[in-house]
Amino acid sequence: MDQKSTTLSKKKWGFRGNSELQAEPETTIRGALTLLMSNLNISDDRPVIPMSVSEPSAFPCFKTTQIATDAIAEAVKSSEFTSYPPTEGILPARRAVAEHLSKTLPDKLSPDDVFMTMGCQQAAQAILHVLGGSKLNILLPIPCFPYYDVYARSSRLEVRYYNLLPDKNWEVDLDSVIAVADENTVAMVIINPGNPCGNVFTYHHLKKVAETARELGILVVSDEVYAHIVFGENPYVPMGVFGSITPVITLGSISKRWLVPGWRIGWLVTHDPDGILKEHGIIKSIQQYFHVSTYPPAFIQGAIPDILAKTNDEFFSRILNLIKESANSCYEGIKDVPGITCPNKPQGSMCVMVKLDISVFEDIKDDLDFCVKLAKEESVLILPGVSVGLRNWLRVTFAIDQSYLEDGIKRLKSFCERHSKGA
Amino acid sequence: MDQKSTTLSKKKWGFRGNSELQAEPETTIRGALTLLMSNLNISDDRPVIPMSVSEPSAFPCFKTTQIATDAIAEAVKSSEFTSYPPTEGILPARRAVAEHLSKTLPDKLSPDDVFMTMGCQQAAQAILHVLGGSKLNILLPIPCFPYYDVYARSSRLEVRYYNLLPDKNWEVDLDSVIAVADENTVAMVIINPGNPCGNVFTYHHLKKVAETARELGILVVSDEVYAHIVFGENPYVPMGVFGSITPVITLGSISKRWLVPGWRIGWLVTHDPDGILKEHGIIKSIQQYFHVSTYPPAFIQGAIPDILAKTNDEFFSRILNLIKESANSCYEGIKDVPGITCPNKPQGSMCVMVKLDISVFEDIKDDLDFCVKLAKEESVLILPGVSVGLRNWLRVTFAIDQSYLEDGIKRLKSFCERHSKGA
Repeated sequence: MDQKSTTLSKKKWGFRGNSELQAEPETTIRGALTLLMSNLNISDDRPVIPMSVSEPSAFPCFKTTQIATDAIAEAVKSSEFTSYPPTEGILPARRAVAEHLSKTLPDKLSPDDVFMTMGCQQAAQAILHVLGGSKLNILLPIPCFPYYDVYARSSRLEVRYYNLLPDKNWEVDLDSVIAVADENTVAMVIINPGNPCGNVFTYHHLKKVAETARELGILVVSDEVYAHIVFGENPYVPMGVFGSITPVITLGSISKRWLVPGWRIGWLVTHDPDGILKEHGIIKSIQQYFHVSTYPPAFIQGAIPDILAKTNDEFFSRILNLIKESANSCYEGIKDVPGITCPNKPQGSMCVMVKLDISVFEDIKDDLDFCVKLAKEESVLILPGVSVGLRNWLRVTFAIDQSYLEDGIKRLKSFCERHSKGA
Repeated sequence: MDQKSTTLSKKKWGFRGNSELQAEPETTIRGALTLLMSNLNISDDRPVIPMSVSEPSAFPCFKTTQIATDAIAEAVKSSEFTSYPPTEGILPARRAVAEHLSKTLPDKLSPDDVFMTMGCQQAAQAILHVLGGSKLNILLPIPCFPYYDVYARSSRLEVRYYNLLPDKNWEVDLDSVIAVADENTVAMVIINPGNPCGNVFTYHHLKKVAETARELGILVVSDEVYAHIVFGENPYVPMGVFGSITPVITLGSISKRWLVPGWRIGWLVTHDPDGILKEHGIIKSIQQYFHVSTYPPAFIQGAIPDILAKTNDEFFSRILNLIKESANSCYEGIKDVPGITCPNKPQGSMCVMVKLDISVFEDIKDDLDFCVKLAKEESVLILPGVSVGLRNWLRVTFAIDQSYLEDGIKRLKSFCERHSKGA
């Protein structure tokens, strides 16, 4: 056995891991998280404070509604959903999503506009793959949820970045959009309510985004995974409202509003009243993509009509109040922490960007160093800005249990004070 | 509105569907199926006979075990699985899969060898992506389950085909493997029990496959989605048995054996006793792939330990007997049908390849034409061989309700008689 094993390891095998996948770990959220968790000090008896990922469901106060779990249990027991579903999704699920989204749209969606996906993540992967091709490019915001960059590159789309403006509550810098776009630009991605910024775009601003996209002859991909999770002065306005200005692809999911991130069920929806997506072969390419791709389990799709129709407003408003309280505590708490500032009070989603002033600290090299040391010394997990494209910022998730949040901010404060110059 | 719409449709928009996705529909199973179904005659009152896709669960006699549905219902209600699972899968699920597979292996697998996937399909997509890269190539069998070709191409792997030998019960033509491999070959894919051929490789043959792969310095990707579904003289032997000859990646799922194809839960397992996959960065690339990819819903993973441990042998043997009976009826029935022959009695999986003698028919151009006309005239769905890489063959799925199968063969016979020359 030993002799054979030696022979084998000396042999030159004709394979190796895909170099595309060997990126720096901190450039994906999962990679960064794995790095931070490996730095936790296991002899610290205090609980770990997870302000790094938007999954409030880890806390009992953020439990999903029984309507959702019952709907899944019934669907799986009904034996109706053990076969392969149609690749675009089962009709009752697509119809339910169309009706659900149409409530906040000027025109009614049809089930044919809806494709069921493995959460918003697969919806993003699908549309970037559909738009992909050599020499083409796509516009992503800075900061941005990092999967868009990964998926664009693996779809052979060049990535160009436009800015979000922290001084204007993270509005799109339309001048920077125009500056980076050219004749090979296919689309721009927006995320609203904002991840990682916690901002909410106004109706007026979204209309200007649509008009700019139209001028450039590009479509808008609108990630609305945090739809309806708004608690500031701007209401949630779906980008689909402006589908007659420029074609819009909306990406969504039940993960956030129903507090079930691990369930992996979402949708990709086309708003194409003038038939432009159809004319340019986009609709056909989306259909073809789902012919060869994986899809959400049939019985989870089967539960969607009940989940969307039966969940009551009390559930949503109770959860929204909890998130709003946490957002406020977080924003107020950070005011007292040296070296970090929050330029805008969060108005939506479950996270916010805060700015790190590295010059304040004695021995912190950058945001990644900050987060690694914070994990090690205080058992607090916060995502480094580099994971979302902004070095020396931090993405703080506030949608956690209130007592954990207060404890987290306290530990963050003591960490920053301890590492400040002259401390 | 009309004026604007005219302006819009005249404007040159800077996007179009991905040309990679515009393949001929019959080259994917879903595409071929959609084509066949669009040709069904809706005024035919007889039930459609679905001998085209391996999803017996559409029939009451092939219902899954209540142990499986109860396990899912309990997992979703337990509230333990609403968070994001670790990207490689939750530990209890990986441990359960490792234990389950270890029963038929000489060495025990560790949970670290297991990655939970969205069915066998995502496991295939994952490993091809991990092995991908320009100038590299992969060896696929002819005939083959068509997703491998699609995934290889989108992973920038050149596809080279080796033959399966119908005269030798679809064994791998090892000479053709050696002939097409070169220094840029990374792996060969085998499917055992065989889809689309219904064959089962012997221990002796699999060992020779492993030895050939070792000579070539390539790894073996073994699709065992039909594991244990064998009913002929050859027992099921997992390729992992030969992991010490050459590294093996096994792809599997509960879809077939538990009759739940729509549930989308499977695994990718590495057999790497000599650490060769690790040394060449394959393990790390697999981990990175799952960092940015989607994954099975957490609560379905949560149900896996109960599903694997508690399903009793009575369920498996009852189902296996039904499939065996259907396989025999299908094989015997086809003997009486003019123009088609079945070179080997099926020994495993749920389908078999039968050969079409086009010269027998008056007005049938090829296998696709045969299947389209059969759907139109007889409401029988059978997959054209071109969908699995063999023109003028057919892939017949026999794992359906016995009375439907008999009716299907009868209609097939009358179709072939009617279209025969001199009929």
